[in-house]
Amino acid sequence: MSGRPRAVVLLSGGLDSATTLAVALERGFAAHALTLSYGQRARLEVERAAAVAAALGAAGHRVLDVDLSLLSGSALTDATVPVPRGRSGDEMASGIPSTYVPARNTVFLSLALAWAESLGAYDLFIGANAVDYSGYPDCRPEFIEGFERLARLATKAGVEGRQIRVHAPLLASSKADIVRRAVELGVDPGMTLSCYEPSPAGEPCGACDSCLLRAKGFRDAGMVDPGSGGQSSRAN
Amino acid sequence: MSGRPRAVVLLSGGLDSATTLAVALERGFAAHALTLSYGQRARLEVERAAAVAAALGAAGHRVLDVDLSLLSGSALTDATVPVPRGRSGDEMASGIPSTYVPARNTVFLSLALAWAESLGAYDLFIGANAVDYSGYPDCRPEFIEGFERLARLATKAGVEGRQIRVHAPLLASSKADIVRRAVELGVDPGMTLSCYEPSPAGEPCGACDSCLLRAKGFRDAGMVDPGSGGQSSRAN
Repeated sequence: MSGRPRAVVLLSGGLDSATTLAVALERGFAAHALTLSYGQRARLEVERAAAVAAALGAAGHRVLDVDLSLLSGSALTDATVPVPRGRSGDEMASGIPSTYVPARNTVFLSLALAWAESLGAYDLFIGANAVDYSGYPDCRPEFIEGFERLARLATKAGVEGRQIRVHAPLLASSKADIVRRAVELGVDPGMTLSCYEPSPAGEPCGACDSCLLRAKGFRDAGMVDPGSGGQSSRAN
Repeated sequence: MSGRPRAVVLLSGGLDSATTLAVALERGFAAHALTLSYGQRARLEVERAAAVAAALGAAGHRVLDVDLSLLSGSALTDATVPVPRGRSGDEMASGIPSTYVPARNTVFLSLALAWAESLGAYDLFIGANAVDYSGYPDCRPEFIEGFERLARLATKAGVEGRQIRVHAPLLASSKADIVRRAVELGVDPGMTLSCYEPSPAGEPCGACDSCLLRAKGFRDAGMVDPGSGGQSSRAN
Protein backbone atom coordinates (compact mmCIF):
# COMPACT_ATOMS: atom_id res chain seq x y z
CA MET A 1 0.00 0.00 0.00
CA SER A 2 1.21 3.46 -0.90
CA GLY A 3 0.47 6.41 1.36
CA ARG A 4 -1.66 8.06 -1.33
CA PRO A 5 -5.32 8.69 -0.46
CA ARG A 6 -7.67 6.25 -2.15
CA ALA A 7 -10.34 7.13 -4.67
CA VAL A 8 -12.94 5.13 -6.57
CA VAL A 9 -13.15 5.91 -10.30
CA LEU A 10 -16.05 4.76 -12.48
CA LEU A 11 -14.43 3.29 -15.59
CA SER A 12 -16.53 2.19 -18.55
CA GLY A 13 -13.73 1.62 -21.04
CA GLY A 14 -14.75 4.74 -22.99
CA LEU A 15 -12.54 7.74 -23.68
CA ASP A 16 -14.13 10.01 -21.06
CA SER A 17 -13.83 7.61 -18.14
CA ALA A 18 -10.28 6.58 -19.15
CA THR A 19 -9.31 10.27 -19.12
CA THR A 20 -11.03 10.66 -15.75
CA LEU A 21 -8.95 7.80 -14.35
CA ALA A 22 -5.80 9.50 -15.66
CA VAL A 23 -6.87 12.76 -13.97
CA ALA A 24 -7.42 10.95 -10.64
CA LEU A 25 -3.94 9.42 -10.86
CA GLU A 26 -2.40 12.78 -11.84
CA ARG A 27 -4.04 14.33 -8.76
CA GLY A 28 -2.18 11.85 -6.58
CA PHE A 29 -4.90 9.34 -5.73
CA ALA A 30 -4.46 5.59 -5.46
CA ALA A 31 -7.29 5.14 -7.93
CA HIS A 32 -9.47 2.04 -7.66
CA ALA A 33 -11.36 1.56 -10.91
CA LEU A 34 -14.92 0.24 -10.85
CA THR A 35 -16.54 -1.10 -14.00
CA LEU A 36 -20.28 -1.65 -13.91
CA SER A 37 -21.21 -4.06 -16.60
CA TYR A 38 -24.67 -4.19 -18.16
CA GLY A 39 -26.39 -4.50 -21.51
CA GLN A 40 -25.11 -5.45 -24.91
CA ARG A 41 -21.67 -3.85 -24.67
CA ALA A 42 -20.87 -5.64 -21.42
CA ARG A 43 -18.10 -8.02 -22.47
CA LEU A 44 -16.25 -5.54 -24.70
CA GLU A 45 -16.55 -2.81 -22.08
CA VAL A 46 -15.01 -5.00 -19.39
CA GLU A 47 -12.09 -5.97 -21.66
CA ARG A 48 -11.33 -2.38 -22.61
CA ALA A 49 -11.71 -1.16 -19.02
CA ALA A 50 -9.31 -3.82 -17.72
CA ALA A 51 -6.73 -2.90 -20.36
CA VAL A 52 -7.05 0.83 -19.62
CA ALA A 53 -6.83 0.30 -15.83
CA ALA A 54 -3.65 -1.77 -16.24
CA ALA A 55 -2.06 0.62 -18.75
CA LEU A 56 -2.65 3.71 -16.61
CA GLY A 57 -1.59 2.09 -13.33
CA ALA A 58 -4.85 1.92 -11.36
CA ALA A 59 -4.40 0.67 -7.78
CA GLY A 60 -7.10 -1.91 -8.42
CA HIS A 61 -9.94 -2.79 -10.79
CA ARG A 62 -13.24 -4.45 -9.94
CA VAL A 63 -16.07 -5.42 -12.23
CA LEU A 64 -19.66 -5.63 -10.98
CA ASP A 65 -22.47 -7.05 -13.03
CA VAL A 66 -25.48 -4.79 -12.60
CA ASP A 67 -28.80 -6.18 -13.66
CA LEU A 68 -30.54 -3.28 -15.37
CA SER A 69 -32.85 -5.57 -17.31
CA LEU A 70 -35.85 -4.16 -15.49
CA LEU A 71 -35.26 -0.84 -17.17
CA SER A 72 -37.30 -0.77 -20.32
CA GLY A 73 -37.34 2.10 -22.74
CA SER A 74 -33.63 2.91 -23.06
CA ALA A 75 -31.77 2.05 -26.24
CA LEU A 76 -28.82 0.97 -24.07
CA THR A 77 -30.64 -1.60 -21.93
CA ASP A 78 -33.64 -2.60 -24.04
CA ALA A 79 -32.85 -4.48 -27.26
CA THR A 80 -36.24 -3.49 -28.72
CA VAL A 81 -35.32 0.24 -28.73
CA PRO A 82 -33.03 1.16 -31.63
CA VAL A 83 -29.85 3.18 -31.03
CA PRO A 84 -30.28 6.41 -33.06
CA ARG A 85 -27.81 6.84 -35.90
CA GLY A 86 -26.55 9.65 -38.09
CA ARG A 87 -28.14 12.46 -36.06
CA SER A 88 -26.99 16.06 -36.42
CA GLY A 89 -25.68 18.04 -33.44
CA ASP A 90 -28.98 19.95 -33.26
CA GLU A 91 -30.96 16.72 -33.16
CA MET A 92 -28.72 15.37 -30.38
CA ALA A 93 -29.11 18.56 -28.37
CA SER A 94 -32.92 18.49 -28.31
CA GLY A 95 -34.52 16.78 -25.34
CA ILE A 96 -33.61 13.61 -23.46
CA PRO A 97 -32.29 11.00 -25.90
CA SER A 98 -33.41 7.35 -26.10
CA THR A 99 -29.91 6.32 -25.01
CA TYR A 100 -30.61 7.81 -21.56
CA VAL A 101 -30.63 4.98 -18.98
CA PRO A 102 -33.00 5.84 -16.11
CA ALA A 103 -31.12 6.97 -13.00
CA ARG A 104 -27.93 5.38 -14.34
CA ASN A 105 -25.42 7.72 -12.74
CA THR A 106 -27.33 7.57 -9.44
CA VAL A 107 -27.04 3.77 -9.44
CA PHE A 108 -23.38 3.89 -10.53
CA LEU A 109 -22.32 6.55 -8.01
CA SER A 110 -24.17 4.66 -5.25
CA LEU A 111 -22.19 1.51 -5.95
CA ALA A 112 -18.98 3.56 -6.15
CA LEU A 113 -19.90 5.13 -2.81
CA ALA A 114 -20.49 1.71 -1.26
CA TRP A 115 -17.06 0.53 -2.42
CA ALA A 116 -15.44 3.79 -1.31
CA GLU A 117 -16.90 3.44 2.16
CA SER A 118 -15.64 -0.10 2.32
CA LEU A 119 -12.14 0.91 1.12
CA GLY A 120 -11.89 3.98 3.35
CA ALA A 121 -11.92 6.30 0.33
CA TYR A 122 -13.58 9.73 0.43
CA ASP A 123 -13.25 10.67 -3.22
CA LEU A 124 -15.31 9.44 -6.18
CA PHE A 125 -14.54 10.22 -9.81
CA ILE A 126 -17.02 10.08 -12.69
CA GLY A 127 -16.54 10.99 -16.36
CA ALA A 128 -19.91 12.74 -16.66
CA ASN A 129 -20.04 15.50 -19.24
CA ALA A 130 -22.65 18.25 -19.35
CA VAL A 131 -21.67 19.63 -22.76
CA ASP A 132 -22.23 16.72 -25.10
CA TYR A 133 -24.80 14.99 -22.87
CA SER A 134 -26.83 18.05 -22.05
CA GLY A 135 -30.03 16.02 -22.38
CA TYR A 136 -29.11 13.60 -19.56
CA PRO A 137 -30.45 14.86 -16.21
CA ASP A 138 -27.72 12.99 -14.32
CA CYS A 139 -24.84 14.63 -16.23
CA ARG A 140 -25.64 18.12 -14.90
CA PRO A 141 -23.53 19.94 -12.30
CA GLU A 142 -26.61 20.18 -10.02
CA PHE A 143 -26.83 16.39 -9.99
CA ILE A 144 -23.15 15.91 -9.15
CA GLU A 145 -23.41 18.43 -6.30
CA GLY A 146 -26.64 16.78 -5.13
CA PHE A 147 -24.99 13.39 -4.97
CA GLU A 148 -22.09 14.83 -3.00
CA ARG A 149 -24.55 16.24 -0.45
CA LEU A 150 -26.36 12.90 -0.26
CA ALA A 151 -23.08 11.00 0.22
CA ARG A 152 -22.39 13.03 3.34
CA LEU A 153 -25.78 12.05 4.76
CA ALA A 154 -25.62 8.41 3.66
CA THR A 155 -22.35 7.17 5.08
CA LYS A 156 -20.52 6.42 8.29
CA ALA A 157 -17.71 8.70 7.08
CA GLY A 158 -20.18 11.53 6.52
CA VAL A 159 -21.77 11.07 9.96
CA GLU A 160 -18.28 11.19 11.45
CA GLY A 161 -17.71 14.54 9.75
CA ARG A 162 -15.60 13.47 6.76
CA GLN A 163 -16.16 15.36 3.56
CA ILE A 164 -16.98 13.06 0.65
CA ARG A 165 -16.22 14.55 -2.73
CA VAL A 166 -17.57 13.66 -6.17
CA HIS A 167 -15.12 14.75 -8.85
CA ALA A 168 -16.39 15.17 -12.39
CA PRO A 169 -13.30 16.71 -13.96
CA LEU A 170 -14.67 16.63 -17.52
CA LEU A 171 -18.09 18.06 -16.67
CA ALA A 172 -17.58 21.32 -18.55
CA SER A 173 -15.13 20.08 -21.21
CA SER A 174 -15.82 19.91 -24.93
CA LYS A 175 -15.00 16.61 -26.62
CA ALA A 176 -11.97 18.28 -28.25
CA ASP A 177 -10.73 19.33 -24.79
CA ILE A 178 -11.19 15.77 -23.55
CA VAL A 179 -9.23 14.38 -26.51
CA ARG A 180 -6.36 16.80 -25.87
CA ARG A 181 -6.39 16.12 -22.11
CA ALA A 182 -6.40 12.35 -22.71
CA VAL A 183 -3.36 12.51 -24.95
CA GLU A 184 -1.51 14.87 -22.55
CA LEU A 185 -2.10 12.41 -19.70
CA GLY A 186 -0.86 9.41 -21.65
CA VAL A 187 -4.22 7.77 -22.38
CA ASP A 188 -4.11 5.78 -25.61
CA PRO A 189 -7.49 6.53 -27.23
CA GLY A 190 -7.05 3.42 -29.36
CA MET A 191 -7.61 1.30 -26.25
CA THR A 192 -10.96 2.93 -25.51
CA LEU A 193 -14.40 2.23 -26.95
CA SER A 194 -17.04 4.95 -27.04
CA CYS A 195 -19.58 3.36 -29.42
CA TYR A 196 -23.08 2.55 -28.14
CA GLU A 197 -23.43 -0.46 -30.43
CA PRO A 198 -20.03 -1.82 -31.55
CA SER A 199 -19.61 -4.95 -33.67
CA PRO A 200 -18.99 -8.20 -31.77
CA ALA A 201 -15.28 -7.70 -32.50
CA GLY A 202 -15.37 -4.22 -30.92
CA GLU A 203 -15.38 -2.08 -34.06
CA PRO A 204 -17.27 1.19 -33.49
CA CYS A 205 -20.36 1.72 -35.69
CA GLY A 206 -19.30 5.25 -36.63
CA ALA A 207 -22.89 6.51 -36.73
CA CYS A 208 -24.34 6.54 -33.20
CA ASP A 209 -24.36 9.80 -31.20
CA SER A 210 -21.34 8.67 -29.22
CA CYS A 211 -19.26 7.84 -32.33
CA LEU A 212 -20.28 11.12 -33.99
CA LEU A 213 -19.36 13.19 -30.92
CA ARG A 214 -16.02 11.41 -30.64
CA ALA A 215 -15.22 11.95 -34.33
CA LYS A 216 -16.07 15.64 -34.03
CA GLY A 217 -13.88 15.89 -30.91
CA PHE A 218 -10.86 14.49 -32.73
CA ARG A 219 -11.57 16.68 -35.76
CA ASP A 220 -11.86 19.82 -33.59
CA ALA A 221 -8.66 18.87 -31.74
CA GLY A 222 -6.89 18.41 -35.08
CA MET A 223 -6.02 14.80 -34.28
CA VAL A 224 -6.58 11.40 -35.83
CA ASP A 225 -8.53 8.89 -33.72
CA PRO A 226 -6.57 5.62 -33.49
CA GLY A 227 -9.75 3.98 -32.13
CA SER A 228 -12.05 4.93 -34.99
CA GLY A 229 -11.66 1.54 -36.67
CA GLY A 230 -11.43 3.12 -40.11
CA GLN A 231 -14.95 4.54 -39.72
CA SER A 232 -13.97 8.19 -39.86
CA SER A 233 -15.43 8.71 -43.33
CA ARG A 234 -18.84 7.57 -42.07
CA ALA A 235 -18.46 9.72 -39.00
CA ASN A 236 -17.77 12.90 -40.97
CA MET B 1 -53.86 -1.77 -15.65
CA SER B 2 -55.77 -0.03 -12.89
CA GLY B 3 -55.92 3.74 -12.76
CA ARG B 4 -54.04 3.84 -9.46
CA PRO B 5 -50.72 5.71 -9.43
CA ARG B 6 -47.73 3.39 -9.43
CA ALA B 7 -45.15 3.15 -6.69
CA VAL B 8 -42.00 1.08 -6.21
CA VAL B 9 -41.67 -0.57 -2.79
CA LEU B 10 -38.41 -2.09 -1.55
CA LEU B 11 -39.37 -5.49 -0.14
CA SER B 12 -36.83 -7.65 1.67
CA GLY B 13 -39.19 -10.27 3.07
CA GLY B 14 -38.78 -8.86 6.59
CA LEU B 15 -41.59 -7.55 8.77
CA ASP B 16 -40.79 -3.86 8.24
CA SER B 17 -40.75 -3.94 4.46
CA ALA B 18 -43.87 -6.18 4.33
CA THR B 19 -45.67 -3.61 6.49
CA THR B 20 -44.39 -0.83 4.23
CA LEU B 21 -45.84 -2.63 1.20
CA ALA B 22 -49.18 -2.90 3.01
CA VAL B 23 -49.06 0.84 3.77
CA ALA B 24 -48.38 1.66 0.10
CA LEU B 25 -51.36 -0.45 -0.97
CA GLU B 26 -53.56 1.11 1.73
CA ARG B 27 -52.61 4.56 0.42
CA GLY B 28 -54.00 3.58 -2.98
CA PHE B 29 -50.86 2.87 -4.95
CA ALA B 30 -50.41 0.11 -7.50
CA ALA B 31 -47.36 -1.08 -5.60
CA HIS B 32 -44.54 -2.74 -7.55
CA ALA B 33 -42.33 -4.64 -5.13
CA LEU B 34 -38.56 -4.76 -5.70
CA THR B 35 -36.42 -7.32 -3.91
CA LEU B 36 -32.67 -6.80 -4.03
CA SER B 37 -30.97 -10.04 -3.31
CA TYR B 38 -27.47 -10.27 -1.86
CA GLY B 39 -25.44 -12.15 0.72
CA GLN B 40 -26.17 -15.25 2.70
CA ARG B 41 -29.90 -14.71 3.20
CA ALA B 42 -30.52 -14.25 -0.52
CA ARG B 43 -32.56 -17.36 -1.39
CA LEU B 44 -34.74 -17.28 1.73
CA GLU B 45 -35.32 -13.56 1.37
CA VAL B 46 -36.52 -13.92 -2.20
CA GLU B 47 -38.93 -16.74 -1.26
CA ARG B 48 -40.43 -14.80 1.62
CA ALA B 49 -40.65 -11.59 -0.41
CA ALA B 50 -42.45 -13.35 -3.26
CA ALA B 51 -44.96 -14.91 -0.84
CA VAL B 52 -45.58 -11.56 0.88
CA ALA B 53 -45.99 -9.70 -2.42
CA ALA B 54 -48.54 -12.24 -3.64
CA ALA B 55 -50.45 -12.37 -0.34
CA LEU B 56 -50.79 -8.59 -0.07
CA GLY B 57 -51.70 -8.05 -3.72
CA ALA B 58 -48.68 -6.20 -5.10
CA ALA B 59 -49.13 -5.04 -8.71
CA GLY B 60 -45.83 -6.73 -9.58
CA HIS B 61 -42.69 -8.17 -8.03
CA ARG B 62 -39.16 -8.13 -9.43
CA VAL B 63 -36.00 -9.60 -8.00
CA LEU B 64 -32.57 -8.13 -8.82
CA ASP B 65 -29.34 -9.79 -7.84
CA VAL B 66 -27.01 -7.11 -6.55
CA ASP B 67 -23.36 -8.03 -6.29
CA LEU B 68 -22.24 -6.47 -3.02
CA SER B 69 -19.29 -8.85 -2.72
CA LEU B 70 -16.87 -5.96 -3.04
CA LEU B 71 -18.09 -4.64 0.29
CA SER B 72 -15.86 -6.03 2.96
CA GLY B 73 -16.30 -5.35 6.64
CA SER B 74 -20.05 -5.81 7.07
CA ALA B 75 -21.38 -8.86 8.88
CA LEU B 76 -24.16 -9.04 6.27
CA THR B 77 -21.96 -9.22 3.17
CA ASP B 78 -18.63 -10.57 4.45
CA ALA B 79 -18.69 -14.14 5.75
CA THR B 80 -15.54 -13.49 7.80
CA VAL B 81 -17.30 -10.90 10.02
CA PRO B 82 -19.50 -12.54 12.69
CA VAL B 83 -23.11 -11.41 13.19
CA PRO B 84 -23.28 -10.10 16.79
CA ARG B 85 -25.54 -12.11 19.11
CA GLY B 86 -27.24 -11.65 22.43
CA ARG B 87 -26.54 -7.92 22.70
CA SER B 88 -28.48 -5.67 25.09
CA GLY B 89 -30.45 -2.66 23.87
CA ASP B 90 -27.73 -0.33 25.15
CA GLU B 91 -25.05 -2.23 23.25
CA MET B 92 -27.14 -2.07 20.07
CA ALA B 93 -27.69 1.66 20.49
CA SER B 94 -23.99 2.55 20.70
CA GLY B 95 -22.26 3.46 17.45
CA ILE B 96 -22.57 2.00 13.97
CA PRO B 97 -23.02 -1.80 14.16
CA SER B 98 -21.07 -4.38 12.18
CA THR B 99 -24.31 -5.32 10.39
CA TYR B 100 -24.27 -1.92 8.65
CA VAL B 101 -23.80 -2.46 4.91
CA PRO B 102 -21.95 0.51 3.36
CA ALA B 103 -24.31 2.82 1.47
CA ARG B 104 -26.91 0.04 1.29
CA ASN B 105 -30.02 2.20 1.25
CA THR B 106 -28.42 4.57 -1.27
CA VAL B 107 -27.81 1.64 -3.63
CA PHE B 108 -31.29 0.19 -3.01
CA LEU B 109 -33.15 3.49 -3.43
CA SER B 110 -31.13 4.20 -6.61
CA LEU B 111 -32.25 0.93 -8.15
CA ALA B 112 -35.83 1.59 -7.01
CA LEU B 113 -35.58 5.04 -8.59
CA ALA B 114 -34.32 3.56 -11.86
CA TRP B 115 -37.27 1.15 -11.95
CA ALA B 116 -39.70 3.90 -10.96
CA GLU B 117 -38.50 6.10 -13.78
CA SER B 118 -38.88 3.23 -16.20
CA LEU B 119 -42.41 2.44 -14.91
CA GLY B 120 -43.57 6.05 -14.79
CA ALA B 121 -43.84 5.95 -11.00
CA TYR B 122 -43.07 8.99 -8.84
CA ASP B 123 -43.30 7.38 -5.41
CA LEU B 124 -40.76 5.13 -3.68
CA PHE B 125 -41.39 3.29 -0.41
CA ILE B 126 -38.72 2.01 1.97
CA GLY B 127 -39.09 0.33 5.37
CA ALA B 128 -36.22 2.27 6.97
CA ASN B 129 -36.54 2.80 10.69
CA ALA B 130 -34.65 5.41 12.68
CA VAL B 131 -35.65 4.12 16.12
CA ASP B 132 -34.20 0.64 16.24
CA TYR B 133 -31.50 1.30 13.64
CA SER B 134 -30.34 4.61 15.03
CA GLY B 135 -26.71 3.66 14.32
CA TYR B 136 -27.29 3.32 10.54
CA PRO B 137 -26.56 6.63 8.78
CA ASP B 138 -28.92 5.73 5.92
CA CYS B 139 -31.93 5.12 8.20
CA ARG B 140 -32.10 8.73 9.36
CA PRO B 141 -34.79 11.23 8.26
CA GLU B 142 -32.04 13.52 6.86
CA PHE B 143 -30.93 10.74 4.55
CA ILE B 144 -34.46 10.04 3.28
CA GLU B 145 -35.04 13.75 2.61
CA GLY B 146 -31.62 13.98 0.96
CA PHE B 147 -32.43 11.13 -1.40
CA GLU B 148 -35.74 12.74 -2.30
CA ARG B 149 -33.92 15.95 -3.23
CA LEU B 150 -31.39 13.97 -5.28
CA ALA B 151 -34.15 12.07 -7.09
CA ARG B 152 -35.56 15.36 -8.35
CA LEU B 153 -32.16 16.29 -9.80
CA ALA B 154 -31.36 12.84 -11.17
CA THR B 155 -34.35 12.00 -13.34
CA LYS B 156 -36.20 12.97 -16.45
CA ALA B 157 -39.35 13.29 -14.34
CA GLY B 158 -37.60 15.65 -11.95
CA VAL B 159 -36.25 17.80 -14.81
CA GLU B 160 -39.78 17.97 -16.19
CA GLY B 161 -40.97 19.32 -12.85
CA ARG B 162 -42.52 16.18 -11.33
CA GLN B 163 -42.15 15.78 -7.60
CA ILE B 164 -40.57 12.45 -6.68
CA ARG B 165 -41.38 11.32 -3.16
CA VAL B 166 -39.56 8.84 -0.92
CA HIS B 167 -41.98 7.44 1.66
CA ALA B 168 -40.55 5.87 4.81
CA PRO B 169 -43.78 5.34 6.73
CA LEU B 170 -42.14 3.43 9.57
CA LEU B 171 -39.25 5.82 10.08
CA ALA B 172 -40.35 7.02 13.52
CA SER B 173 -42.20 3.86 14.64
CA SER B 174 -41.19 1.62 17.51
CA LYS B 175 -41.04 -2.08 16.74
CA ALA B 176 -44.23 -2.56 18.79
CA ASP B 177 -45.98 0.06 16.63
CA ILE B 178 -44.79 -1.75 13.50
CA VAL B 179 -46.11 -5.09 14.82
CA ARG B 180 -49.53 -3.53 15.56
CA ARG B 181 -49.63 -1.74 12.20
CA ALA B 182 -48.66 -4.94 10.36
CA VAL B 183 -51.48 -6.91 11.97
CA GLU B 184 -54.03 -4.10 11.37
CA LEU B 185 -53.12 -4.06 7.67
CA GLY B 186 -53.44 -7.80 7.25
CA VAL B 187 -49.74 -8.70 7.08
CA ASP B 188 -49.10 -12.21 8.39
CA PRO B 189 -45.88 -11.84 10.40
CA GLY B 190 -45.39 -15.59 10.13
CA MET B 191 -44.59 -15.14 6.43
CA THR B 192 -41.81 -12.68 7.13
CA LEU B 193 -38.19 -13.26 8.11
CA SER B 194 -36.27 -10.66 10.08
CA CYS B 195 -33.23 -12.71 11.18
CA TYR B 196 -29.75 -11.69 9.96
CA GLU B 197 -28.52 -15.28 9.93
CA PRO B 198 -31.38 -17.81 9.68
CA SER B 199 -30.89 -21.56 9.39
CA PRO B 200 -30.87 -22.99 5.85
CA ALA B 201 -34.53 -23.93 6.44
CA GLY B 202 -35.39 -20.34 7.34
CA GLU B 203 -35.63 -20.64 11.13
CA PRO B 204 -34.62 -17.39 12.86
CA CYS B 205 -31.57 -17.61 15.15
CA GLY B 206 -33.34 -15.78 17.97
CA ALA B 207 -30.16 -14.04 19.11
CA CYS B 208 -29.06 -11.51 16.48
CA ASP B 209 -29.98 -7.82 16.93
CA SER B 210 -32.81 -8.17 14.43
CA CYS B 211 -34.35 -11.21 16.19
CA LEU B 212 -34.00 -9.51 19.59
CA LEU B 213 -35.64 -6.29 18.37
CA ARG B 214 -38.48 -8.24 16.79
CA ALA B 215 -39.05 -10.29 19.94
CA LYS B 216 -39.13 -7.12 22.04
CA GLY B 217 -41.58 -5.54 19.58
CA PHE B 218 -44.03 -8.43 19.89
CA ARG B 219 -43.60 -8.48 23.67
CA ASP B 220 -44.25 -4.71 23.92
CA ALA B 221 -47.27 -5.06 21.63
CA GLY B 222 -48.60 -7.88 23.81
CA MET B 223 -48.65 -10.30 20.88
CA VAL B 224 -47.18 -13.68 20.06
CA ASP B 225 -44.88 -13.82 17.03
CA PRO B 226 -46.01 -16.57 14.68
CA GLY B 227 -42.67 -16.23 12.86
CA SER B 228 -40.40 -16.74 15.86
CA GLY B 229 -39.86 -20.41 15.02
CA GLY B 230 -40.19 -21.44 18.66
CA GLN B 231 -37.10 -19.34 19.50
CA SER B 232 -38.86 -16.93 21.83
CA SER B 233 -37.25 -18.34 24.97
CA ARG B 234 -33.79 -17.59 23.54
CA ALA B 235 -34.93 -14.19 22.43
CA ASN B 236 -36.16 -13.15 25.86
